[in-house]
Amino acid sequence: MANPSCPFCAIIMGEGWAREIYRDDHTVAFFPLQPATLGHTLVVPRRHIPDIWELPEADAACLSRTVLRVAAALRTAVTPDGLNIIQSSGAVATQTVPHLHVHLVPRWAADAMGPIWPAKPPSHPPQVLDNLRDKLAGLMAS
Amino acid sequence: MANPSCPFCAIIMGEGWAREIYRDDHTVAFFPLQPATLGHTLVVPRRHIPDIWELPEADAACLSRTVLRVAAALRTAVTPDGLNIIQSSGAVATQTVPHLHVHLVPRWAADAMGPIWPAKPPSHPPQVLDNLRDKLAGLMAS
Repeated sequence: MANPSCPFCAIIMGEGWAREIYRDDHTVAFFPLQPATLGHTLVVPRRHIPDIWELPEADAACLSRTVLRVAAALRTAVTPDGLNIIQSSGAVATQTVPHLHVHLVPRWAADAMGPIWPAKPPSHPPQVLDNLRDKLAGLMAS
Repeated sequence: MANPSCPFCAIIMGEGWAREIYRDDHTVAFFPLQPATLGHTLVVPRRHIPDIWELPEADAACLSRTVLRVAAALRTAVTPDGLNIIQSSGAVATQTVPHLHVHLVPRWAADAMGPIWPAKPPSHPPQVLDNLRDKLAGLMAS
């Protein structure tokens, strides 16, 4: 199941170093090497699953259970004003380690995280959006 | 269950307008009014749950199932190079509607989304991180 060149698989197997806060049969939670804010934690499946498109539904349920538990622990431990949960698939989406991971990032005003969203969202023609809605609704129904 | 002042509850009840792509007994998926990229979709629980800390585990499993299905449909419909999945709790984390929602944001190089992460992550003293790890590990074990 493990990928020998994957740094997260190494942490999961106990062969890599990380500040680990939790593990169960399906998931492990640990701090990234460079936390964006205090308490920034990653939750990963123990299996080497590269991205969201390869994540089976049962594994997603295990992952979300651990995410909820870490979110609750972070609220108690660092009393943040908010929390971002971020899952990035693909280098263009900022995924740097090809083992699926969910970031939990406690937030405070004026912390190191920048704005997540575009200051000026792009304009999409209504007809383009309508067509895409129809296409996606068809795919979701199939 | 619905909150009369919540715009997402209005959409869920069919009393607000949105480009909707999917609904089942527990979740609804629709485009935000100002998509950050083409295909940007929100997945929400039908119940008015304000944030991640109020989300029961069973509801999280329903939500993650729909998120996986929308991610797959987006891959087919818009063939993105990557995908960000973002859940924001609290105004400081950019939550603007107080009804829990999960963003799925298809990504391409040079799209309108800016960098998500700090260019220069803050430096946390190792002892502070060690202490926080111990505190969180204790909370996760309890």
